[in-house]
Amino acid sequence: MIAEIIAAGSEMLTPFRQDTNSLFLTEGLNDLGVQVAFKTIVGDSLAHLTLAAKVALSRADLVLFSGGLGPTEDDNTREAAAAALGLGLHRDEQLMESLRQRFAARKMPMPANNAKQADVLEGATILENANGSAAGQLIDTVLDGSRRIVLLLPGPPREIKPMFTNQVKPRLAAILPLGFLARGLLRMALIPESLVDSRTAPIYQRFPDIETTILAGSGEIQLHFQCAKPTRAEAEARVADLSAAIEHEMQDDIFSAHGESLEEVVLLLLGLRHWTLATAESCTGGLLAGRLTGVPGSSRYFLGGAVVYADQLKTVFADVPEEIIEREGPVSEPVARLLAEGIRARTGASMGVAITGIAGPGPGTGADAEKPVGLVHIGLADPDDTQVRTLHITGDRERIRFWATQYALEMIRRHLL
Amino acid sequence: MIAEIIAAGSEMLTPFRQDTNSLFLTEGLNDLGVQVAFKTIVGDSLAHLTLAAKVALSRADLVLFSGGLGPTEDDNTREAAAAALGLGLHRDEQLMESLRQRFAARKMPMPANNAKQADVLEGATILENANGSAAGQLIDTVLDGSRRIVLLLPGPPREIKPMFTNQVKPRLAAILPLGFLARGLLRMALIPESLVDSRTAPIYQRFPDIETTILAGSGEIQLHFQCAKPTRAEAEARVADLSAAIEHEMQDDIFSAHGESLEEVVLLLLGLRHWTLATAESCTGGLLAGRLTGVPGSSRYFLGGAVVYADQLKTVFADVPEEIIEREGPVSEPVARLLAEGIRARTGASMGVAITGIAGPGPGTGADAEKPVGLVHIGLADPDDTQVRTLHITGDRERIRFWATQYALEMIRRHLL
Repeated sequence: MIAEIIAAGSEMLTPFRQDTNSLFLTEGLNDLGVQVAFKTIVGDSLAHLTLAAKVALSRADLVLFSGGLGPTEDDNTREAAAAALGLGLHRDEQLMESLRQRFAARKMPMPANNAKQADVLEGATILENANGSAAGQLIDTVLDGSRRIVLLLPGPPREIKPMFTNQVKPRLAAILPLGFLARGLLRMALIPESLVDSRTAPIYQRFPDIETTILAGSGEIQLHFQCAKPTRAEAEARVADLSAAIEHEMQDDIFSAHGESLEEVVLLLLGLRHWTLATAESCTGGLLAGRLTGVPGSSRYFLGGAVVYADQLKTVFADVPEEIIEREGPVSEPVARLLAEGIRARTGASMGVAITGIAGPGPGTGADAEKPVGLVHIGLADPDDTQVRTLHITGDRERIRFWATQYALEMIRRHLL
Repeated sequence: MIAEIIAAGSEMLTPFRQDTNSLFLTEGLNDLGVQVAFKTIVGDSLAHLTLAAKVALSRADLVLFSGGLGPTEDDNTREAAAAALGLGLHRDEQLMESLRQRFAARKMPMPANNAKQADVLEGATILENANGSAAGQLIDTVLDGSRRIVLLLPGPPREIKPMFTNQVKPRLAAILPLGFLARGLLRMALIPESLVDSRTAPIYQRFPDIETTILAGSGEIQLHFQCAKPTRAEAEARVADLSAAIEHEMQDDIFSAHGESLEEVVLLLLGLRHWTLATAESCTGGLLAGRLTGVPGSSRYFLGGAVVYADQLKTVFADVPEEIIEREGPVSEPVARLLAEGIRARTGASMGVAITGIAGPGPGTGADAEKPVGLVHIGLADPDDTQVRTLHITGDRERIRFWATQYALEMIRRHLL
């Protein structure tokens, strides 16, 4: 069984907006053992949308539309699907009544336009929309001798997500041939993709019934596993076996086997030791603290710290002597060390971490004028010792800043293991 | 003239990865007066890719492929395009030689696989790839009596972007009917979309030759304008007229008419006054500082500040008396005021801004235990005065944190006007 997703909306044919519903829909379809073979993005025009619908019905068993169910002239998904399937549309009285009630509850008159939201394809099952006026529709029919399942779903994520999860998935699970898909995910930071592949390929190739995908980006390598089996237990056992074999090979290089982010793992490890952490950030200007405080409950182990962007704040908030900043430059191994120790002392945290570097695009100032863009020093102070790591990060300002926070988190993680 | 973009690659049919090249390609095509009518995303299978190519050639004048030009078995774009167009493929000797040289320069033997990267469609123009081994191809042909222009382009952004900009755009500009597209963009923060639309629609509707798109998201409303005219001057003059009329209506609500981000505008306004800024962040934990330091050159006007996540750091770094935190709660109007004044005094900045709030999902502690998730106080201290704004932001932790930084930046901007 293969599926096609059609995202309807002219804004997704501009340089500014993208279809994102299809990622969520794909995940849900994969859960049911269905692969997505095609995705089409098409504008609001009835002619184009009908053409896209016909093409999809000719090559996929299951066709999902997202968007185009609103009340305006530009909302043509119902009409296009009806034309492509050769089915009639009729105005559903019950749906009309619930639209009227919806407007009455808001003490607003129902605009005439909205009546078209009660148009339903012949034989369709109506899917209620808890978060909007656009009802969904499910059509299970035969076209040119082949069974076709068609779903009309609203575009806004807060409408399509609950509708898909609560109404579509259970119905498809009942309709489709039984199957269960188990997933796994191993995450590693700051290792070359080629190294991960050369060490893990001999293992995952022994599991040809598991689809393994390696994704690299933002200082992280992810190994995704998908395995379809007739029962949940079988599928999950296979994924667990492969995951265990790769964990045995990669050991501590794996920071997460259950989906946690690197910052979540760092906070977890701090919690195990009952340690607290504080940060002093220069070139990353608060990004590291921002990542850590993005985790709910982080306040138990992350105290905060200082954004020591201007040189004088390195002295004001972390007691780095002015003369050392002047002599060595703010981007230097001694300043990273003193910042880490200083922020630890000032905040009373168990651990202090400091980042100083040249994020570019311009060069550093004073004693740093000759240092290269991408030079970053990370200092880590704990009750016993302070260590400093020196890095040369390539790329633009945004990449250098993000990778610096990634290196800092990975350095903390390995230190806490 | 209408275009279709086909993105080839099975990873874009997983829940994890998306086609992003099409945004860049769409912008470039719009520049040339070409609209994108369809986008198709398809896997690596030769059968599916050929099917997608045939469909595209039946409904678009210009078909752009991205991806599938590598050396592996999964790279089938050349073969699919040849099959759909009914054109032969031949191995190009000059391309073979440049592939050999490429490997020789890296002192590596050329794998046999790579030879297929020298396969060229009948009559194609070869597009050199400065950043990889996959050459692009441009085919200008007639299919079933209609002219068809087909482009085969590599998938990696760092390969397709320079190839499209330097080799494809000039060639298409020479081939296509003359036309010029001018763009405009007005950005506003934290105003309801419906209000912007009701005030601006009567204006932009007077410019039916300009395509106006309103996009809302992340605490920002964007008005995008596109206007195609035979000459650059005409197109730009029309967009300038509409932009001026809307600026006249919306006045200071518009923070940027030239694409600058809100943080860039804030830094620009600080620069005009020769003022400096420092931040004290509790619930946003460094995100505001992170946004400001993301702007190159921000160090001239942004000094840094403190991440006062733990209560004791509000005292350590901004001298907020402990008893006030205990009595009023850390999320309170007096604490926001004292944080703003304290960080200003400690850093010597002209302006201090403070954010304290309950980002959730859990409730606050101590005196804050009864306060609602989403309550945020923003304090702003300057040489004359301190003001505090109290907000109730809806949504999840991530949204509350981001919107709090957005409100803070907008509050600073309006204060500096």
